Amino acid sequence: MNNVGKNRIEVCYSPALYSYYRNDNAIVVVTDILRATTAICAAFENGVKNLIPVADLEEARELKNRGYLVAAERDGEVLDFADFGNSPFNFHPGQVRGKTIVYSTTNGTQAIRMASGAKHVAIGAFINQSALASWLREKDSDVLILCAGWKNRYNLEDTLFSGALSDILIGTGRFYTECDASVAAMELWKIAKMDITGFMEKAAHRHRLKKLGLDDVMEYCYTPDSTCAVPVLKDHMLVEHKWY
Amino acid sequence: MNNVGKNRIEVCYSPALYSYYRNDNAIVVVTDILRATTAICAAFENGVKNLIPVADLEEARELKNRGYLVAAERDGEVLDFADFGNSPFNFHPGQVRGKTIVYSTTNGTQAIRMASGAKHVAIGAFINQSALASWLREKDSDVLILCAGWKNRYNLEDTLFSGALSDILIGTGRFYTECDASVAAMELWKIAKMDITGFMEKAAHRHRLKKLGLDDVMEYCYTPDSTCAVPVLKDHMLVEHKWY
Repeated sequence: MNNVGKNRIEVCYSPALYSYYRNDNAIVVVTDILRATTAICAAFENGVKNLIPVADLEEARELKNRGYLVAAERDGEVLDFADFGNSPFNFHPGQVRGKTIVYSTTNGTQAIRMASGAKHVAIGAFINQSALASWLREKDSDVLILCAGWKNRYNLEDTLFSGALSDILIGTGRFYTECDASVAAMELWKIAKMDITGFMEKAAHRHRLKKLGLDDVMEYCYTPDSTCAVPVLKDHMLVEHKWY
Repeated sequence: MNNVGKNRIEVCYSPALYSYYRNDNAIVVVTDILRATTAICAAFENGVKNLIPVADLEEARELKNRGYLVAAERDGEVLDFADFGNSPFNFHPGQVRGKTIVYSTTNGTQAIRMASGAKHVAIGAFINQSALASWLREKDSDVLILCAGWKNRYNLEDTLFSGALSDILIGTGRFYTECDASVAAMELWKIAKMDITGFMEKAAHRHRLKKLGLDDVMEYCYTPDSTCAVPVLKDHMLVEHKWY
């Protein structure tokens, strides 16, 4: 295999491992499939103008008091002061079109903040995977996929997305990987893609969401390409690249 | 599935994630397939009396000056003051039988030190997997498999071993898992076990070892059950449980 002139893909399974994968020449793709990054892509699909990811709840509460719409969740539950939780079904166009939304979740927004020193930061989910891959191909840069995980633990749904995205990018002929985490993710994706819901029955996170009665979003989160939105970080704010 | 009365298995892919998996009721199985934990099992198979894992090289050097046999390696290369590197072929019975060996490696011995607060710490490798599984079954306790990884990054060979061991333990009917990392490792093991060397061609570590001309140990490291030795930590020293 000749990798000359190709860009490298790596996958980091937890924000707590980010410093061991950090690559200043890479675009960081943050993913938190259930549900932060899926919800962010859905928000842009529904017309949100921009989105301020906030790691700290106090900051979210303060911005609420200053008049922003706020989406905030911890451990899968909507916080009392918030307008929305992190379900991708929250963001109705009539309510959010043209608006700025402040967003804080258990894992996803922390990962976005952590990556904010990178060359570019983009938001990845199954629902925007093809648009994201096209944008990444055009950018012609190394890619580091950062899984938000679950409280710094490894999770399957973010891994599967990393495998799917690695697979698409390598398929373009412009990327390669020598990263064990990326290789493992692609192998798992090969097994899972035939029946992702069945496969995910095995995932602990599904059990967590079920307990909270929130697993109505599962099918939506695993269905590819319902949007062309590629949210990217600019000056600590997520804005949209439409990719047609 | 009824998990009542069963013990839980979890897998931690990196020492840097250990604090998120820590479970004081668990036996920690440390694994560093290429090559520290394979070499430790081989050392006991060849009659080593006990083995002092040392994270710090200065400590290893000092113990050398005090007359101990020392095995020490960094990034796959034997250190100048050491008697051995970390090849499992180093420990000839004539040279090591009945001796105490001081041992320091890039990843493995650091992981052992990190786990030393646990209820029990055992050393796992493909070459002792059945003996280890029998010992764990008898102990009747939760199990946390701690992968040494590569400089805190995820690696495939430790993952595959975690999958193999999870699989054997769950097969006894006395263990269960709800841990995504354990589920993923078992799925990967299912694919890899038919042709582990072929599968590992994909692993970055193999490339690293090849460059150093050290991959003569590969087949040995992936061959199950060449020893019944179960090294366990006692008072900061590894000693052997023979399991017949």
